[in-house]
Amino acid sequence: MANPLDRIKPRVRGLKAYTLKPDRGAVKLNQNENPWGVPEAVRAETLRRMGRREWARYPDFVPAALHEKLAAFAGWRADGVVAGNGSNELIQATLMVTVGEGKRVLISEPTFALYRQVTTVLGGEVLSVPLDGALGFDVEALLEAIERDEPDVTILCSPNNPTGCRISEEELERLLTRAGGIVVIDEAYFEFSGRTVAPLLERHPNLAVFRTFSKAMALAGLRVGYLLAAPELAREVSKAVLPYNLNAFSQTAAEVAVELYDAELRPTVERVVAERERLFTELQNIGGLAPVRSCANFMVVRRRRTCASV
Amino acid sequence: MANPLDRIKPRVRGLKAYTLKPDRGAVKLNQNENPWGVPEAVRAETLRRMGRREWARYPDFVPAALHEKLAAFAGWRADGVVAGNGSNELIQATLMVTVGEGKRVLISEPTFALYRQVTTVLGGEVLSVPLDGALGFDVEALLEAIERDEPDVTILCSPNNPTGCRISEEELERLLTRAGGIVVIDEAYFEFSGRTVAPLLERHPNLAVFRTFSKAMALAGLRVGYLLAAPELAREVSKAVLPYNLNAFSQTAAEVAVELYDAELRPTVERVVAERERLFTELQNIGGLAPVRSCANFMVVRRRRTCASV
Repeated sequence: MANPLDRIKPRVRGLKAYTLKPDRGAVKLNQNENPWGVPEAVRAETLRRMGRREWARYPDFVPAALHEKLAAFAGWRADGVVAGNGSNELIQATLMVTVGEGKRVLISEPTFALYRQVTTVLGGEVLSVPLDGALGFDVEALLEAIERDEPDVTILCSPNNPTGCRISEEELERLLTRAGGIVVIDEAYFEFSGRTVAPLLERHPNLAVFRTFSKAMALAGLRVGYLLAAPELAREVSKAVLPYNLNAFSQTAAEVAVELYDAELRPTVERVVAERERLFTELQNIGGLAPVRSCANFMVVRRRRTCASV
Repeated sequence: MANPLDRIKPRVRGLKAYTLKPDRGAVKLNQNENPWGVPEAVRAETLRRMGRREWARYPDFVPAALHEKLAAFAGWRADGVVAGNGSNELIQATLMVTVGEGKRVLISEPTFALYRQVTTVLGGEVLSVPLDGALGFDVEALLEAIERDEPDVTILCSPNNPTGCRISEEELERLLTRAGGIVVIDEAYFEFSGRTVAPLLERHPNLAVFRTFSKAMALAGLRVGYLLAAPELAREVSKAVLPYNLNAFSQTAAEVAVELYDAELRPTVERVVAERERLFTELQNIGGLAPVRSCANFMVVRRRRTCASV
């Protein structure tokens, strides 16, 4: 009898499943969530609205009300917004409509593991430029790779997971101008940096920006992300986004979180940033430690001494 | 300047987005949901459990507790269960790990539009066998296509959307024995048929069964589906399922729905089936109408008269 596993693409069979070991620390830090939890006002209002809704009915085909709110929140147009089941879904959808055998995706590692995983499942080739010695983006090497290898898609996480480095608007504009392909900036942690590349969307139709509700927005349990791009590009990516991808509860919670951001969530972001800077200074004062400046809600700390000298 | 849309796969660009016109009827029937809505006991218990949970934390990497409950519910093993963000996500994941350029997917149309949509996005070829004159599966033609074209994947919706026909265990076993590829049975409506092909999983490692919480289980708004397959096949499909794909709220609601199925949901299914049979008989008694027997919660009604004679 034929082995049905022979029908699985060889690249997929060779792939290790993306996994994460459960954390065992006294304080959970390994997923960079908002440590202050969901504000009670967001929780209560979401439960109130969901108490009135008919759960047995499909959610909106396209969550238009949420798209409108996200557009206002991000300073972009609603027809250039696509909400998803976590930004993971939008990473996958963007790669699904662009990547197949013979296509190339440029990333800068170490970074979020999913870019490589999904590209590989889809049969594309991953081109990887390492971060520089200071754990920042090596923009010159990225430019060189873009010109030499003409990647179909370039994905940078900025601020980068797990190093906290950020690409500046000027640097990104250089990449965008030279790139013939699509450039994705995953802004999962942008709230903690106080900056965004979203204003570049206006004059760069090859830019896509991904955002998430899992970090600053304190809704990791509910899985909401969104994409910002030119409407033409957003429309193509939407073709690989599943219908009814966003459940009614998460859609509702995301709307509430955006409405209450300034009153309830921004203060928690400000506390995280203040703590990060305080921690950076304190760590600098500890002999042998060299914290790396971070624009996110986590920080790499290097050891000054080599292993041999410890 | 290069056009970033040139990086979108030509097949995707040529594709019309899957859409659905909003219904405008006095009674909403177009999505085959459970018309009695979510039972109050399911709703209250879900809200109670979610009131105690920390929403800012990621959900389980793999929803193991739900997989255990679904395994017991379906009479299958937990390591052969994969829960998803609606069964749509599992359709997509199964096709992602099997389909690329040069791969073939056999379906029987008319049927659920997503099989064709996703296959096309992934660059595969759709082979379509029409339903027979009585709107049932043309099993001989399907067998012929399987032997002639050797599809990598065959997908049948049973009971079929939108006709309500069902493939029998004996017929399916003939397909499974002859197929070298994977055979998917989408059992979105199985509760209304009173039958399932899940017992065939034990001796057919090329069978995958998809289920959903959007129909009988009355949770369309929350997007939960699951796959049943041999553990080896389930593991490969999982590689294309996004991490944290199922949000905490939907996972909780699905657990509650399974726990309360016999007490709360099964009676609503029995009412739907009784109404379907009553309606069938009544429609038969109306001159000129020819209802088609259905195993689902909807029914095709044909007109006996030709257009010319009306």
